[in-house]
Amino acid sequence: MPRLPESLPDGIYAASLTPVTGRLEIDHQLLTAHCRWLLANGCSGIVLLGTTGEANSFSVAERMAALDAVVDGGIAPTRLLVGTGCAALSDTVALTQHALSREVGGVLVLPPFYYKGVSDAGIFSYFEALIERVADERLNIYLYHIPQMSMVPFSPALFGRLVDMFPRQIAGIKDSGGSWDHMKALRERYPGLRVFPGSETFLRDMLLLGGPGCISATANINSRLAARVYQQFDRPAAQEMQEALNQLRGIILNYPVIPALKQVMAAITAQPGWRYLRPPLMPLSEPDAARLMRELEAVDFPAQF
Amino acid sequence: MPRLPESLPDGIYAASLTPVTGRLEIDHQLLTAHCRWLLANGCSGIVLLGTTGEANSFSVAERMAALDAVVDGGIAPTRLLVGTGCAALSDTVALTQHALSREVGGVLVLPPFYYKGVSDAGIFSYFEALIERVADERLNIYLYHIPQMSMVPFSPALFGRLVDMFPRQIAGIKDSGGSWDHMKALRERYPGLRVFPGSETFLRDMLLLGGPGCISATANINSRLAARVYQQFDRPAAQEMQEALNQLRGIILNYPVIPALKQVMAAITAQPGWRYLRPPLMPLSEPDAARLMRELEAVDFPAQF
Repeated sequence: MPRLPESLPDGIYAASLTPVTGRLEIDHQLLTAHCRWLLANGCSGIVLLGTTGEANSFSVAERMAALDAVVDGGIAPTRLLVGTGCAALSDTVALTQHALSREVGGVLVLPPFYYKGVSDAGIFSYFEALIERVADERLNIYLYHIPQMSMVPFSPALFGRLVDMFPRQIAGIKDSGGSWDHMKALRERYPGLRVFPGSETFLRDMLLLGGPGCISATANINSRLAARVYQQFDRPAAQEMQEALNQLRGIILNYPVIPALKQVMAAITAQPGWRYLRPPLMPLSEPDAARLMRELEAVDFPAQF
Repeated sequence: MPRLPESLPDGIYAASLTPVTGRLEIDHQLLTAHCRWLLANGCSGIVLLGTTGEANSFSVAERMAALDAVVDGGIAPTRLLVGTGCAALSDTVALTQHALSREVGGVLVLPPFYYKGVSDAGIFSYFEALIERVADERLNIYLYHIPQMSMVPFSPALFGRLVDMFPRQIAGIKDSGGSWDHMKALRERYPGLRVFPGSETFLRDMLLLGGPGCISATANINSRLAARVYQQFDRPAAQEMQEALNQLRGIILNYPVIPALKQVMAAITAQPGWRYLRPPLMPLSEPDAARLMRELEAVDFPAQF
């Protein structure tokens, strides 16, 4: 029987960017270094190959190779929540099996996202088939609710049915829907589940409700300050830090988020290769990049983050 | 230098269903038999592994194996327009290269469909990279416009830029957007392109404009009558047949289309295995299936189609 993994830690999770080379292949060395930096600078864990990590712009083989490189490079797999959800059940099964073979802390699974308007029964059947085919006690699924991108929401009824039917396999939820009422209702209704807001905007509020932390794209660049909010959330001073986080996020969200974050990484690491993205995502234009960096300087980034 | 393929024929194309076994693996034998039946019953060509064929519910390896089985089973590859568009550029490149190695008549390529709200420049860059990486004179791309499913439209400006920049590689368009004005405008603006409506509803009208035919999900079950409209489109009698096609399609569209078509195949071939679908798609309920079959009998299906 395989050893059961440690539970993923509470705290701040960066939804890691995936650096690519000029040939648009994943830069394993830079990705591993970035993961190491995140864990040394406030992150308790890392979402590898989620939406921010351009996961669905890479093949199954490319995604497996990236995870292998990161774990072989010394990143503790128990700190990794790995995106494995694809449109094709067979791809999701293969990526999930591979992630478990590397003893990761959890897998973050999108609903199948090509067909729109599918029934809750169809999505349930997909997860049922995934769990049956993977058939591994180490399986810790985090449902990935990001309807503005997947266009396939988990309805409240579907959440409930999955959690009720698979209490050992469904460990939590990443709620990137952006509605505080939605994530609060999930937290209150399923106290045994770990509900991670998909944004640090809700970090302090979720911690005050007893939640585990947050997962965020912007945590690629603000994880030190986010970690201070996590550590001091119940003190009044945390609110000021929370507001600084919100202000930074507001600046980034005025741009295409993933290109903007890669632009910031290029600037603060002085490695211009960080700007590359796989199509259909594109680097910021030079004027937009310059404007973004000026706006960030005005809020004392990176020193205050 | 590889031999250039014959151009795909004009006429009726079924967007073929993909039969699966009880284990939800592609049933190669049944798929090949179905393709043979379609070509013997009115279809000039077949779209293999498009939306109706549940393409994005299968892995790259499963899709390659299905095409191999169909071609090895004796279906002329020059009659095949093969869906190769994935969310990941690397997958689309691999499937396109494989399809060309089997000397298919064309490839039907979705825009990358995970990220929403991406720029025209990003989608252009994706197709530019695809064409550069495939680097094969046999490449005949049909752009797959199906915004209600992909949620990523080809804007008129993007169409124009792709056609202008890659006149040898962009052979045509499957317009499944459902707007006659849109497909008519494409047909009139790009007379050198082959604009296939993604529905037989527009078959006669597009033929009267000099268009090539149509590609349709419902052509899995009505290809004989659709072929008669194709052959006799300029005679007044064709309008009555067109209206019978429209009536049949109207019945099917009251149900989830792919499950409904598989239900009809199960009934008319007396092979219940046709009802299986990969999640998230699900078979029709028994009452819905019974109701559908009664509605079809009322329009004298299958005898009149």
